[in-house]
Amino acid sequence: MLPFNSETEFTGWLARKSAGKARGLHLGIGDDAALLELRPGFKWVVTTDLSIEQVHFSADRHPPRSVGHRALARSLSDVAAMGGEPRFALISLALSRRVRRRWIEEFFTGMLRLARRYRVKLVGGDTALHAGRTMVDVTVIGEVLRDRAILRSGAKPGDFLFVGGELGYSALGLRLLRSRAGSKRFSESKAIRAHLYPDPQCQLGAFLAGRRIASSAIDVSDGLSSDLNRLAQASGVGARIWADRIPRPESAGGNSARSPGLSLALHGGEDYKLLFTVPPGRVELLPKRFRATRIVRIGEMQASRLGVQLVRNGNAVPLEAAGYDHFRSGKS
Amino acid sequence: MLPFNSETEFTGWLARKSAGKARGLHLGIGDDAALLELRPGFKWVVTTDLSIEQVHFSADRHPPRSVGHRALARSLSDVAAMGGEPRFALISLALSRRVRRRWIEEFFTGMLRLARRYRVKLVGGDTALHAGRTMVDVTVIGEVLRDRAILRSGAKPGDFLFVGGELGYSALGLRLLRSRAGSKRFSESKAIRAHLYPDPQCQLGAFLAGRRIASSAIDVSDGLSSDLNRLAQASGVGARIWADRIPRPESAGGNSARSPGLSLALHGGEDYKLLFTVPPGRVELLPKRFRATRIVRIGEMQASRLGVQLVRNGNAVPLEAAGYDHFRSGKS
Repeated sequence: MLPFNSETEFTGWLARKSAGKARGLHLGIGDDAALLELRPGFKWVVTTDLSIEQVHFSADRHPPRSVGHRALARSLSDVAAMGGEPRFALISLALSRRVRRRWIEEFFTGMLRLARRYRVKLVGGDTALHAGRTMVDVTVIGEVLRDRAILRSGAKPGDFLFVGGELGYSALGLRLLRSRAGSKRFSESKAIRAHLYPDPQCQLGAFLAGRRIASSAIDVSDGLSSDLNRLAQASGVGARIWADRIPRPESAGGNSARSPGLSLALHGGEDYKLLFTVPPGRVELLPKRFRATRIVRIGEMQASRLGVQLVRNGNAVPLEAAGYDHFRSGKS
Repeated sequence: MLPFNSETEFTGWLARKSAGKARGLHLGIGDDAALLELRPGFKWVVTTDLSIEQVHFSADRHPPRSVGHRALARSLSDVAAMGGEPRFALISLALSRRVRRRWIEEFFTGMLRLARRYRVKLVGGDTALHAGRTMVDVTVIGEVLRDRAILRSGAKPGDFLFVGGELGYSALGLRLLRSRAGSKRFSESKAIRAHLYPDPQCQLGAFLAGRRIASSAIDVSDGLSSDLNRLAQASGVGARIWADRIPRPESAGGNSARSPGLSLALHGGEDYKLLFTVPPGRVELLPKRFRATRIVRIGEMQASRLGVQLVRNGNAVPLEAAGYDHFRSGKS
């Protein structure tokens, strides 16, 4: 049985489910394209992110609400890392023929709940059924005041390096989901929640941009080691981080290796926390907490020739990018 | 062997291949998101379209240049149908692990060639390898003067109905590719070209919008019967078209059914020609040809209660939507 009788029925259903007005929205779902307008004095921040079954999610670990939530969260986090405010989203959905209508409904429930939290409007997309795996592509359009966007390339040696919140919980949550341990300890359910329903730091990003606090930023999507290396490379600088400063899970779910929490925080990925640099002269503008989020100084930028380093027990060692890379990973 | 050694290598390669400045582009490939700006007085036209292996293309019929070309053409055609001028594109690519680097290069050669023809700039995207089928999702952002966008909903009874160019050639081309007939007759190579390298009618769309000629428009992507029904429904009107006026292939490639060319033109799809309505008072502004494209009047809009009809040999019969529908078709 097909989940909807026709594209028209599906489009109508989705238009009703995401109905409502939004500033700057002139025409949403249902025509050849959406018609949007922006406030004068703003630039547009545009990003797109894929989520693929068996790569980014799997049917046995990720409930459909989580799949929809995570697919949108990835793009929202990119907009946050530019200091932008997300406004509109387009969703392309290549649906496996195995998928039931219930799955689609729950998927959009998860996605639209997160969209409403950040006042993001679903304005278009494309949908097709096929015999392969389900794939989602989310495009998010945001806005940022003309000269306030935070790029990856603005860090200077001497800038302090901060992270918004804790790292490694998403990777720990995935490990727990894989092991199906079923433990109900608080730290473990927190990790599972961090994995299934990550909260992109849209307000923190807009705050950092609006007050001109950050000199550069990136979101931690592939792992701190990978994303810090990207930030440093884009800025043409090096960086050093202190292992004992990195906020991370105490327990690492079962295994008792030496410091598994650190490894998860360094290479785990999918945390969607902002990693950003602040020049010494601006650091007093940065609060210790932003709403419920602790802002933690984990390192500093340094000369390019020193590279990217991890300082642990007094020793600085090179920190290689060891997070997720789609052209290297064996995951699929 | 992997097609690229890392995401960074791929991103760098693509950034070089699509390098160059563009008006309104502040930041393209390489950061968390693209930064774009629009001319004052314009709205943004935004659309996204999926192309999936075994649904929209197949490895044995579509060379990679055609896959890249067609994936972009679909979205450009949507922007054209709104009367917009395409400006920027984002490409998400879920690549099958079977794909070779040569395929990726040719894919982008085809896509970027079409992009350059219409001055469209590739500004971002996402790429992942996976074990399933290759999928492409293309988002195109265009601009249109604030009050000039052409919607599907603007047709009135009495408006004339036009099509830009000929219908059915793409479907004929696909039939020829499937039969591998290898014939080199001119009309057949024209059909194959129409299928592999359709030319979206961006300039015609912008002309119709700029002069306020069209009261409504849609592009023929799923077939005239389906897209005319959508246009009529969105406008709350009916329509009648004359079978003998529809510009279509004489031959229909082998089969000698009664009028196979008409069937291809009515239900074939993927022509990417503009179907639009013009109020009687504006019709004198419409040329018989726009550049190389013949503008053909194929019918008129009528009261909603009369429905959508095909007039053939003097008889008006209901014209049901019988083109492609992703929730009904058995294709995959």
